[in-house]
Amino acid sequence: MLIHLSSWPEIDAALKSGHALSSTVIVPIGSNEQHGPTGLLGTDWLCPEIIAHAAEKGEEALIVAPTFNIGMAQHHLAFPGTITLRPSTFMAAIGDWVASLTRHGFERIYFLNGHGGNVATIEAAFAEIYAEWSYAEDRADFALKLRNWWDLAGVTGLCNSIFPTGHGMHATPSEIAVTQAAYPDRIKTADYEPRIAPVGPIRDALDYRARFPDGRIGSDPAQASPEKGQRIIDAAVPALLKDVADFAAEVLPGT
Amino acid sequence: MLIHLSSWPEIDAALKSGHALSSTVIVPIGSNEQHGPTGLLGTDWLCPEIIAHAAEKGEEALIVAPTFNIGMAQHHLAFPGTITLRPSTFMAAIGDWVASLTRHGFERIYFLNGHGGNVATIEAAFAEIYAEWSYAEDRADFALKLRNWWDLAGVTGLCNSIFPTGHGMHATPSEIAVTQAAYPDRIKTADYEPRIAPVGPIRDALDYRARFPDGRIGSDPAQASPEKGQRIIDAAVPALLKDVADFAAEVLPGT
Amino acid sequence: MLIHLSSWPEIDAALKSGHALSSTVIVPIGSNEQHGPTGLLGTDWLCPEIIAHAAEKGEEALIVAPTFNIGMAQHHLAFPGTITLRPSTFMAAIGDWVASLTRHGFERIYFLNGHGGNVATIEAAFAEIYAEWSYAEDRADFALKLRNWWDLAGVTGLCNSIFPTGHGMHATPSEIAVTQAAYPDRIKTADYEPRIAPVGPIRDALDYRARFPDGRIGSDPAQASPEKGQRIIDAAVPALLKDVADFAAEVLPGT
Amino acid sequence: MLIHLSSWPEIDAALKSGHALSSTVIVPIGSNEQHGPTGLLGTDWLCPEIIAHAAEKGEEALIVAPTFNIGMAQHHLAFPGTITLRPSTFMAAIGDWVASLTRHGFERIYFLNGHGGNVATIEAAFAEIYAEWSYAEDRADFALKLRNWWDLAGVTGLCNSIFPTGHGMHATPSEIAVTQAAYPDRIKTADYEPRIAPVGPIRDALDYRARFPDGRIGSDPAQASPEKGQRIIDAAVPALLKDVADFAAEVLPGT
Amino acid sequence: MLIHLSSWPEIDAALKSGHALSSTVIVPIGSNEQHGPTGLLGTDWLCPEIIAHAAEKGEEALIVAPTFNIGMAQHHLAFPGTITLRPSTFMAAIGDWVASLTRHGFERIYFLNGHGGNVATIEAAFAEIYAEWSYAEDRADFALKLRNWWDLAGVTGLCNSIFPTGHGMHATPSEIAVTQAAYPDRIKTADYEPRIAPVGPIRDALDYRARFPDGRIGSDPAQASPEKGQRIIDAAVPALLKDVADFAAEVLPGT
Amino acid sequence: MLIHLSSWPEIDAALKSGHALSSTVIVPIGSNEQHGPTGLLGTDWLCPEIIAHAAEKGEEALIVAPTFNIGMAQHHLAFPGTITLRPSTFMAAIGDWVASLTRHGFERIYFLNGHGGNVATIEAAFAEIYAEWSYAEDRADFALKLRNWWDLAGVTGLCNSIFPTGHGMHATPSEIAVTQAAYPDRIKTADYEPRIAPVGPIRDALDYRARFPDGRIGSDPAQASPEKGQRIIDAAVPALLKDVADFAAEVLPGT
Repeated sequence: MLIHLSSWPEIDAALKSGHALSSTVIVPIGSNEQHGPTGLLGTDWLCPEIIAHAAEKGEEALIVAPTFNIGMAQHHLAFPGTITLRPSTFMAAIGDWVASLTRHGFERIYFLNGHGGNVATIEAAFAEIYAEWSYAEDRADFALKLRNWWDLAGVTGLCNSIFPTGHGMHATPSEIAVTQAAYPDRIKTADYEPRIAPVGPIRDALDYRARFPDGRIGSDPAQASPEKGQRIIDAAVPALLKDVADFAAEVLPGT
Repeated sequence: MLIHLSSWPEIDAALKSGHALSSTVIVPIGSNEQHGPTGLLGTDWLCPEIIAHAAEKGEEALIVAPTFNIGMAQHHLAFPGTITLRPSTFMAAIGDWVASLTRHGFERIYFLNGHGGNVATIEAAFAEIYAEWSYAEDRADFALKLRNWWDLAGVTGLCNSIFPTGHGMHATPSEIAVTQAAYPDRIKTADYEPRIAPVGPIRDALDYRARFPDGRIGSDPAQASPEKGQRIIDAAVPALLKDVADFAAEVLPGT
Repeated sequence: MLIHLSSWPEIDAALKSGHALSSTVIVPIGSNEQHGPTGLLGTDWLCPEIIAHAAEKGEEALIVAPTFNIGMAQHHLAFPGTITLRPSTFMAAIGDWVASLTRHGFERIYFLNGHGGNVATIEAAFAEIYAEWSYAEDRADFALKLRNWWDLAGVTGLCNSIFPTGHGMHATPSEIAVTQAAYPDRIKTADYEPRIAPVGPIRDALDYRARFPDGRIGSDPAQASPEKGQRIIDAAVPALLKDVADFAAEVLPGT
Repeated sequence: MLIHLSSWPEIDAALKSGHALSSTVIVPIGSNEQHGPTGLLGTDWLCPEIIAHAAEKGEEALIVAPTFNIGMAQHHLAFPGTITLRPSTFMAAIGDWVASLTRHGFERIYFLNGHGGNVATIEAAFAEIYAEWSYAEDRADFALKLRNWWDLAGVTGLCNSIFPTGHGMHATPSEIAVTQAAYPDRIKTADYEPRIAPVGPIRDALDYRARFPDGRIGSDPAQASPEKGQRIIDAAVPALLKDVADFAAEVLPGT
Repeated sequence: MLIHLSSWPEIDAALKSGHALSSTVIVPIGSNEQHGPTGLLGTDWLCPEIIAHAAEKGEEALIVAPTFNIGMAQHHLAFPGTITLRPSTFMAAIGDWVASLTRHGFERIYFLNGHGGNVATIEAAFAEIYAEWSYAEDRADFALKLRNWWDLAGVTGLCNSIFPTGHGMHATPSEIAVTQAAYPDRIKTADYEPRIAPVGPIRDALDYRARFPDGRIGSDPAQASPEKGQRIIDAAVPALLKDVADFAAEVLPGT
Repeated sequence: MLIHLSSWPEIDAALKSGHALSSTVIVPIGSNEQHGPTGLLGTDWLCPEIIAHAAEKGEEALIVAPTFNIGMAQHHLAFPGTITLRPSTFMAAIGDWVASLTRHGFERIYFLNGHGGNVATIEAAFAEIYAEWSYAEDRADFALKLRNWWDLAGVTGLCNSIFPTGHGMHATPSEIAVTQAAYPDRIKTADYEPRIAPVGPIRDALDYRARFPDGRIGSDPAQASPEKGQRIIDAAVPALLKDVADFAAEVLPGT
C-alpha cells in the first residue's frame, strides 16, 4: 500500500490485519541534488521510490510512506537545483516522521535510502531518537533500519558487473540507469570530459565545484541505459522484499 | 520545468535565460494526513502538485520544485497514516529550502499550498526568514509568497458553485475531486454518517478525533467526482499561471 | 484579579473557588512596534491590556495575567523603538507561559491579542504545544484560544461605523483611539501625507519602510479621539466577558 | 521617555539628539513569581519599573523600554501565579531584545533587574550575544550592563539600616515596601509563621516548597510599609541616574 | 575512583556499596583559555582536576568523573589556544552529562569548577534541568551543586595570605601555582608589564584584548611557585572531602 | 605542543612560525563508555589521547588540543559510568570547537577519533559546519578531517595479525591493549563468558544490554596485553604523523 494513495481506514485495517508486514513501513528517502551533466536532480529520491513502488506492486501488504525527498546535500549547493536541509533540520524532521509513524503502531521503520551523503545524518538521527529512551531507562517500542538501495543483497555485485569501470561514487551509471528505466522520456546526453570523473574529499560547496567541475565523482554515466536500469530494479525488488520481511520478523531481545 | 526531472545544466540555463519566469520557482507544499473515510492521505500535497504540474505542462518556463509533502498536521495524528512535522521543524525546513533556492539565484519563491493547517506555520517561517534581514538592516534579495490553491482567482467561487452545500473545511469534495481526476483508479467510497460532518475548533489529536469521528469537518465528500475535479484543475491552472506571472513581474520598492 | 497585583494565596483561593471563571486566565498579548507618526509604540500591547483590565474592574473573578508585551514585529524594525522576537523565540516563550499557567491548574488560556502580525506565530505556537500531546496519544488537559480584540463580537462593526473610511490595517484610528482614551496625556498629532496611507504586502523591514514611509498601512489615524476610543472599549468589555465565559463553559468532547 | 508611550519619530529624534543619554536605553527586567503570603506576584518586575519610571519623570532624556516582566522562576512554580521562562527561552528573548534595540542605534543597553534568580541567565545571555562577535573576530558595537536595583549605590545600605533583621533573600521587606509605595491599595497582610522564614538552597519547585512552605526565604516582610518603600525609591532614583550616566559616558577601549 | 580508569562493574559495585559517598559523583569542570603570558591554557580545568584527583588518592570511595574541559570563555577568544562553547551549547552538554549520571543512580552531582566565567552558565544549566521537573510538578530525584575550588573552606583565605597583593581575578598566582605544583616541567616565565594587570568589565573578545593586552586581569602571577601551589592543594583536598561528604549526607526535605 | 600545557604566546608563536604543521591542530576525540567487564570506561578517549601525545613527544611541532572526552554513547547507557551527549549537543559542541580553533588561524582540524559510534555524528557535524559556507556561497577557509586511530595506515592490519580471532567491534583486545600499555596499573581481569561476545545491531540502551549482557560486541579482550598495546601505539604514531603531514600539505583547489 502506498500510504499517500490510501485512506486512513485502509491503513488502520492494515495495521490491525495481523499480516507479517503489518507493522512495518518503508520510507523511501533521498536527496534532490545535481547528478552531473545528465543525471536528474531528483535521482537520489527517485531511485528508492522507484524500487519501493515496484516492490509494492508485487506485494500489496508492503506499506510505503511518501518519499522523503530532500536530504543532506550541502556540498552540491554550487550546482543549481540542489536543495538541502542542514543536518540538524534533517534530524528533527526524521524524528517527527518516526514519532508520527510509531504513534500509529508501526514498530519497524525501514528507511530505503538513495543518497550516500544522507547516511551519517540519518544514523545520527536514529541515535538522537533512541537517546530519549536510553536516558529514560525505557525500551524503545520500535526499531529503525537504514538500508541504501545499492546495499540490498546482490545489487552492488550486479552494478559492478554491468559497469566494471567508471561506476564511481556520484552520478553513477547505475543510479542514472534506474531513473532512465522509470523516466525514459527524460534521458539526457552530454559529452563527458573527462570520461571518468575525478575523485577526492567532500567539503563545502565551492570546494566541491572546484574539484568536480561538472558534478560527477569518479563516474562515467554515459554507460547508463534504461535496460540496464531495469535489470537493477528487477534485482533490487526481491532483495528489498526479503530484507523487509527479515526486519519485520526480527525478534527483539528481552521483549 | 520540473526541477527533479531536470539536470543542473538545464536549471542553470533557465536561470540565465532572461525569461520573465526565470528567477521564480513554485514549491507545491501540503501535508500527508487523513482526509475522512475516502480521501487519500496524500490529498493535501497531491492537489498543489497536480495543479502545478498541469501548469508546467502548458508553460514549460514555469520552474517547479519537488513537492514539500509533509506539513503541520498534529491534530490529525489520531488517524493512521498521518505524518506531521512540529511547527518548529517545519519552519526550519522551509528556511533551508529557501536558503537553497535563493542561493541559486531564485528571487521569488512561490509556495502553492494545499493545507489550511500549514498557513500559520508557513507565515511564521517567512517571518523567521525575513527577521534575519530585518535585524541586519539589510534588504532581502528575494520575495516569498504563500498561495492556497483554492484561493487562486475564481477557484473558490467555482467550488462553491459546484458544491453549494457540504463543502466544509476538511476532506472537502473539491480537494477530493481534484485527486480523483488525477488518480481515478484510487477512488474510494463510503457511507458517510452524518452526510455532512460536524464543525468545531481544532486542538490536539484526541480532541479532534472525539469531535470529528471519521475525520471530516463540515464536508460531504460524496459529491466529488473526477469530472468535477478536472473542472477545478482547469480553472486553477490559468489562475496559477497568471498569479505567478504577476508575482514574477512585481517591482520591489527601493530596489 | 490581576495576577501581578495579587499574592499567591489569592490566586490559589481563586483556583479552588469553584467559580465559573476560576480555571480560566486571560493573557493580554501584543507587540511593541511603530504605529505611524502619532501612534504609541506600545499600542498593540496596551489595547488588549486596557480592555482586559477594564473587564476585570467590572468582574473581579476574571483572572488576568501580566501582559505579554513583545511579539512578532520584524517588519517594523526599520522604525526606532520597535522590539521584536523571532517567531521561534516567541513560540518558545508562549510554550513556557502555557506550561507555567497550566501547571497551576488553569485549564483554559485565553490570549487577547492586539497585533495582527502575531496571529500566525501564536497559532503555530499552539500547534507546537498540542503536538506533544498528539504524538504522545494523550489528551491535552487544557484548551488554548486566541482572540484579537477587534474580533470580539460587535467591535469591528462599531469601528467600521465610526471610521467608514481610512480605517486601514496598521496604525488604525480605532487602536489609536483606544490608547488615547487610556492615555489622554500622550496624544500626539501630525500632518499625515497622504491622508490615507498606502497598502501592500509585508516582507522584511527595509521593504516595509520603502512601501510605507511613515509606518501606516491604509489608515487615517487623524480620525481618532479619546471619546471614540472609549466607545470601543465600552463595546469590547462586555463582549470579552461573554467570550471568556463561553470559553470557560465549553465542554470538551470525550472528557 | 517611555518607549511604549512614545511614537517612533520621538524615539528617532531622541536617538539623533546628541544628548549624553541618547544612545542608552534602560530595560526594567524582572519576574512574575510568588513573594510570600503578602507580596505581589509582580514584585520583581514592578520594582525596577517603579524605579526606572520614577527616574524618567525627573530626567526626560532617560529612555526606558517596556518592562521585561517574565524571567527565570522555575523554583517558584509550586506557588500559583508564578510564570517562568526556561533559561534557554529567556536567553533567546534577551538576544532578540538586544538585536532590536541595537538595530536602532542604541549602543548601551542597561538592564535594571529586580530578581536575583535572573542574574545567571542574563549573564549567560550576554555571553551568548557577545560570543557571536568574538568568534567573528569583530568588535561588538554596543555594551550590555546588568544592575540589580538593590545594588545601586547606597540602596543595600539603606535597606539594611531600615531592616536590620529579617531582610532575607526572597519576599524581602524592602522589595515589598517598594511595591507598597507604588500600589498602596494592594497592600496585604498575614500572620507570618515563623516571623523570619528559613533559608536553604534553591533547586526544583517541589523541593523549594518543602523547604519554604509559604514562599519566603529568610525574610520578615511584616516590616514593610509604603513610607519605607518610598525612602528606598528616593534613594534608588538618583543612584540609577548616576549609574546610567556613567555607563553612557564610558569610553570603550580601542574604538 | 576515577570513572575513566574504572570498568563498569567497578562503578556498578560502588553504586551498590551503600558507602556514604556511593551515590555522589564529582565532575571537575573548567575551561581551556589563555591565562596570561605564562599561565597554561588548561589552567582552569587542570586545577579542579588536580584537586579532585588528589582527593581521590586519599579517599578511594570518592567517585570522580572525567574532566569537563571546555567551558564558557568567549571573552578570551582573541588569544590563541582558547576554546569556548557558546552558553547554549554548554548548557545542553551539562544537561546531557547530568542525564547520563543520574540515569545510573547518582543522586548528587557535584561540579568542582575552575573558571569564574563558567558560573553563570552552569547555574543557568541547573535551572534548565530543574525546570523540567518543576513544570511537571515532579520532584527531581537528584541534587546539583556547583563549587568553585577557591571557595572551598579556607582556600581563599590561604590564597590571600600567600598573595596579599596582586592576586587579581584572572591568571591569578594561586591558580598558576596549583598548575606549577602538578606540572613543574611546564613552568614558564615572562617580564610582566605592568607587574599588576589592570581591571575592568568583561565583554566581547576584542574589547577584552584592548583592555587586558597580555590577558591577565588584576594579577601578578610572577609570585606563583610550585611550593605555594602545593600548599593550596593541600588545603583544598580536605575541604573538598568535607564539602562532598556534607553534600552526600544532606537530607532532602519531603523525600 | 599540547595546547593545554602551553601558554597563549607559545601557541601564537607556533601559528606564526611558518612550520609545515603550524596551522594544523589534532583533536583527540572519543567517548566515556563501558568497555566490557575489564575495559576502562575512558578507553575510547584515552586511546587517541595516548597516540596523539606519543606523537607529540617525537614531533614537537605537532599541535594537540585538549581531548574531547564525551561523545555519542547513548546505546551504552545501561552500563554505569557511561556518559553521552545527544547527537545534537555533540554537533553543537564540535561546531563551537571548530569556530574557536579556526578563529585563531588553524586551517586544518584533524579529529583523531577513538569511538566508532562517534563517526556518524562527527560527519553530520562537519556537514552542519560546511553548510553555512555553502549556503553563503563562500569558501570555507579551513578543512576538517576525521580519522579513526585504527584506520591509520597499517594499524588495522597489525591488530588483525595480533588478534586473528576475537577482535570484534566493541571492547576489542586492541583498544584495551593500548590502554594497558599506558595505564599498566589499571589492568583488570575477568572470566569472559562466552569467550567471544555475540554480535548484532545497535539500538537503544536496554536493547543493547539485552543483546550484549557484559557490554562486549564480538570481542575477546582477554588477549590484550601491555606489550601488544605498545606495538600498536608504536605503529600508530608514525602513521599519524604521516597522515597529519599529508593533510597539512594538501592543496585546496581554487584557493
